[in-house]
Amino acid sequence: MKLNYKLWLENDAGERVMGKGLLDLLTLIDKTGSINRAANELEMSYRAAWGKLNKAEKELGYDLVTKKSGGKGGGGSTLTNEGRDLLTKFRKLDRGVSNELEELFNEVFL
Amino acid sequence: MKLNYKLWLENDAGERVMGKGLLDLLTLIDKTGSINRAANELEMSYRAAWGKLNKAEKELGYDLVTKKSGGKGGGGSTLTNEGRDLLTKFRKLDRGVSNELEELFNEVFL
Repeated sequence: MKLNYKLWLENDAGERVMGKGLLDLLTLIDKTGSINRAANELEMSYRAAWGKLNKAEKELGYDLVTKKSGGKGGGGSTLTNEGRDLLTKFRKLDRGVSNELEELFNEVFL
Repeated sequence: MKLNYKLWLENDAGERVMGKGLLDLLTLIDKTGSINRAANELEMSYRAAWGKLNKAEKELGYDLVTKKSGGKGGGGSTLTNEGRDLLTKFRKLDRGVSNELEELFNEVFL
């Protein structure tokens, strides 16, 4: 037997503003410098990735990503300071929870 | 902002054997002595409650509830020792996680 979990942040209105999906998306935008490449790696459409970002930004009340428009060489996207800060914090939470859960599980079940 | 979570146990085949739904159902069977009353309180059908129990029992490989058939005074159901043990452990896990999450969140976000 094994314990599993799902973790997400909610805003004060109870709306889900960040979970594993946004964590992965921001991580890959940070890595690839492109919403499009990040979406590709996650096998989601650019439109879906963009929608996910916009929804989160609206609920958070700040920008997560700076969008540069295409032009000839194609656009690029980087995380804003707030976006990077949120990514770092959520990752820290997720790791902490993962460790704590393992300990708790062993304590209770083994 | 606020952190929320979902917790569940998986068997070795990766099947979800217990989550909040089964926790509530077992808690109420224990309290009311009846699958039917437990289902009512959860606003689910008897059939759905029964299906949930059977599925979990199959995946766990042991009985959670003793089923007594109706008869004139109506049947009753109590948790088996294994059922009560699982309920106690999952509750302990859930409380532990809830406390740890709050601490982690405060640590990271405040």
